Order: sequence, then C-alpha cells, then structure tokens
Amino acid sequence: MTDISLAKALKIITAAFAAGKEHGFKPLSVVVLDAGGHVKAFQRQDGASMMRFEIASGKAYGALAVGAGSRWLNAQAETRPHFLEGLSAVSGGRIVAVPGGVLIRDRKNAIIGAVGVTGDTSDNDERAAVAGIEAAGFTPDAG
Amino acid sequence: MTDISLAKALKIITAAFAAGKEHGFKPLSVVVLDAGGHVKAFQRQDGASMMRFEIASGKAYGALAVGAGSRWLNAQAETRPHFLEGLSAVSGGRIVAVPGGVLIRDRKNAIIGAVGVTGDTSDNDERAAVAGIEAAGFTPDAG
Amino acid sequence: MTDISLAKALKIITAAFAAGKEHGFKPLSVVVLDAGGHVKAFQRQDGASMMRFEIASGKAYGALAVGAGSRWLNAQAETRPHFLEGLSAVSGGRIVAVPGGVLIRDRKNAIIGAVGVTGDTSDNDERAAVAGIEAAGFTPDAG
Amino acid sequence: MTDISLAKALKIITAAFAAGKEHGFKPLSVVVLDAGGHVKAFQRQDGASMMRFEIASGKAYGALAVGAGSRWLNAQAETRPHFLEGLSAVSGGRIVAVPGGVLIRDRKNAIIGAVGVTGDTSDNDERAAVAGIEAAGFTPDAG
Repeated sequence: MTDISLAKALKIITAAFAAGKEHGFKPLSVVVLDAGGHVKAFQRQDGASMMRFEIASGKAYGALAVGAGSRWLNAQAETRPHFLEGLSAVSGGRIVAVPGGVLIRDRKNAIIGAVGVTGDTSDNDERAAVAGIEAAGFTPDAG
Repeated sequence: MTDISLAKALKIITAAFAAGKEHGFKPLSVVVLDAGGHVKAFQRQDGASMMRFEIASGKAYGALAVGAGSRWLNAQAETRPHFLEGLSAVSGGRIVAVPGGVLIRDRKNAIIGAVGVTGDTSDNDERAAVAGIEAAGFTPDAG
Repeated sequence: MTDISLAKALKIITAAFAAGKEHGFKPLSVVVLDAGGHVKAFQRQDGASMMRFEIASGKAYGALAVGAGSRWLNAQAETRPHFLEGLSAVSGGRIVAVPGGVLIRDRKNAIIGAVGVTGDTSDNDERAAVAGIEAAGFTPDAG
Repeated sequence: MTDISLAKALKIITAAFAAGKEHGFKPLSVVVLDAGGHVKAFQRQDGASMMRFEIASGKAYGALAVGAGSRWLNAQAETRPHFLEGLSAVSGGRIVAVPGGVLIRDRKNAIIGAVGVTGDTSDNDERAAVAGIEAAGFTPDAG
C-alpha cells in the first residue's frame, strides 16, 4: 500500500474546489483520509456550515469501512436500513451513508485513501470528489 | 460575522415567550446558540418538562450544523432517514430534527446564531422562534 | 421540594452578574439547575469563552450530585482523586470539581437547585454565585 | 468577530510548516479551528503518525474552550489536575492540555480561531503555531 502524500491530497482538494466553482456548486468542504481512515488534509470553503468536517469525514470513513463508495452505503440504507444502523453502531458513530465518499485507488488498484465531499447535493458532492481524484492522477471508485 | 450579544439573545427569548403567551401556547423553553453552536442563553418556563434544554438545543444545533432551519432536517428525515441518522451520529448525538430550530441572520445575511424552541407543537415552536428573532431586529431563516 | 421558578432563577443570574461588575470580574457565565439537575436558565456574558456553559453546568451538577458545594468536591479531589474520577465516570462525565457550584436552599433548608458560575477565578466565581442566591432570597450552600 | 477565511487558514499552515522546516522539526500536523471550535483546515505532513489530527485539534479546542493558549491548560494540569479532568469530561473528551494550541486574535483583539500544532516537542509545536499566525497577519495568544 502506498500512503497518499500530502502533496497529492492537496491536489485532490484544489481540483475538487475547482470542479465546484466550474459547476456553480455551493461552498464545499473536502477531506482526504489515508488508507487507515485517518485525516490527511481538510479544507472548508468560506460560507460552508459548521459541521461540514464531520459530514465529509463520515462519507469518506464509511467508504473505507466497507471498501466501496458511500453511494453503495446509501443503496444499502434504502434496502436494509438495519445494516447501516449496525455499521454506524460498530464504527462508533463515524459513518454518513450518502453519496460524496469516494475511494482513491492507485495504478495497482490498491486503496490508498478516500475523499469525502459535502456542501452541495450529494450527487454533486460525488462529482467534485471524482474530479479531484482524477486530477491527482488516481482512479476514483464511487461504488 | 457579528457575534450575537447577550442583550440581543435575551430580547429573542423574551419575545418568543411573549408570542407563546399571545397565542396560548404551552410553557415554552428557548435557547439561543452562537454561530459556533455554543450556548449563549436559555430559559425554561415554569411547568415545562425536564429535558427541554436538550430538545431546544438539538433543534438549534441541527440547524447550524447544516446551515438550514430544522424544518429542512425534518423533511430530509422523511425522505432519507439514514442521512439524519448519519448526521446525528457524527454530531455526537446533538441533533433533534423537527421544526423549531431557526437560524438568526444579520443585515449582511450572515448566520450569527440559532434559536431553538420547544414546548408546544413543532410548528408553534417555530412560530415563537421566528417572532423572537424578528423582535430582536434580525432575520429568521426557518428553512 | 419547591421547584425554583424561572423568575427567581433570572434574579440569581442578574445579581451574580452585578456582583461580577461590582468587583471587576472577567465576563461571567451563570447557570441555574433545578433540584433534578436540569437546566432552568443560563446566560453567558459577552467576551466569555465558548465552553462556559459546560463548565458552569459541571460545577452546579457536581454540587447537586453529592449534596455539597463544588468546593467540597475540590477538596475531595485533592485528598482522594480516585473518588472524583469515580464520580465523574458514573455521572457520564458531567462534573467539574472546582469552586463555583453552590446549592440553593429554601427556608425549610431543602435543596431546590444549584448555581454554577465560571469566568473569573474559582473563588470569585463562588462569590458571585453566593451573591446571586442571596439576592433572590435563598440560602447559599457552598460546601 | 471576523470569521477566519480559508485563505488565511492556509497561510497559517504553510508558514507553520516553513518554520518547522527552518528549525529542523519532525513532521508537523497543523489544524486551524474557527472561533466556534469547528475545523477550517488541516494538513498532516508525510511521516507524521496517525492520530495527529486529533492531537492538534485537542490543543486548539482546549485553548478556545477556556480562552487561553493550551500552555495555560498545561500549567493548570500541573497544579490542579482534577480541573483538567473535569474540563476534559464536559468537553466530551476533546481537550489535549499541552503547549501547541494558540489562539488567533485579530486587530481588535477578538478571538477568530485557534491553531493546533503537533509533531515535535510541545514547545516547538507552539513556536510553529506562533510563526504561522504571525505570518498570516494576526496576533498569536499562546497563554
């Protein structure tokens, strides 16, 4: 497993913000977690509400928890909500199961971290995350 | 962003209680949080039940967490309940997603705090919060 | 047990602030809990730091928990710290064991609530709490 | 109170890292919290250990909680450890009471946020935080 570098993490965030600006999204907040789910970098744009770090982290952490984009968790939540309740419980309340959490895969398809974006609609959050990961030269896995 | 002063916070509470009295509401409890979600002032009317501080705070905190009145959270809870469960979890269990939590906006439209009211029906709680904020010279944002 | 009324709780807070102003204390924060330890009223003066509600409540809650002013808890903490750790644990982390938490006793010597003050030195916090309770016509019990 | 902008927060982090590089510090991690204690920006240098976000945040949050640099909390912990235990408890376990948490004051001396640095010795962490705040044009308050 290659650890995602700070330089790459910052590229992801910058590119995610750029995608947000290009598409006219609301102020975004972007977190990059390493493969162990620990915070590598985070930025909250001016005008974003106060709990955006926790929400962004919840999407990224949920993705890493199960090895799939948070969109997959959202689908699970709709078909078997008790599973998500169990995931939330055993994670210690660290998961937000809506789109916007996207895995970062390297050239060998290994998971080297995850991005969580929040601030616009969940679908647009995911779009910004995907754009950020691609701009940094990695492969996004949105589930 | 202007910090809401204690004097203004007390005006909000007094006016919310006055609205409650005018409309014959049950005993109300009103909290004012600053823009960071920290308690500025609170009052629980005689005859109100014991957990009203927590309920009022949960409505106001939820509003600040996402930058929308708690009525918006209530609507989200009805369409995608798992999202609210995630928000609740990552907030550390600090959110009550029913109407009665209203953002306080100043003349520049900046969020300077939030009011949470509980004690009557949620819709009436929200009416009292709106009345309080307007009486203090601010703009209520109920979502 | 007579429940402390909101009117009396507000008298306590106002008088505590007046004592602070008279003695040149830093901005104070004052909470009044009812006899069950539930928040009745709270006010944080402008310029007070963000966690003052929690600290004031911790002093008042600790006093009610053991039926003695928080000064008694402070003394206990110095002679047998493991007792305070146990109290903190079983309370769910709700106690701050330094002076400033003072019980409110009525004419029959019954405990009808507690005041918690924070913002200046602990000794001065306690002075303000005592002044507030006396101004409201009750008997302060600082331990 | 002025909200600290993302641009300024990133200046602080960059300058803190530069100070670390100039003095040969170990890999640093730097968080900037807004005045309400919510995460604005964070970066963990390559080679830093996994829990640095939590440690940096704990120093900055502690400073904001009481309105003093975390060095003051460190001194309190040495003279009355039970006070720090109480603070930790009522904060929900969010405080790390060693130097490295420094308040950010603007031209009007208002607190607009806090910086938390971790990675080298606590004294050096504090030096980096101070350098970062000064480079961004604000006044550091280390307690």
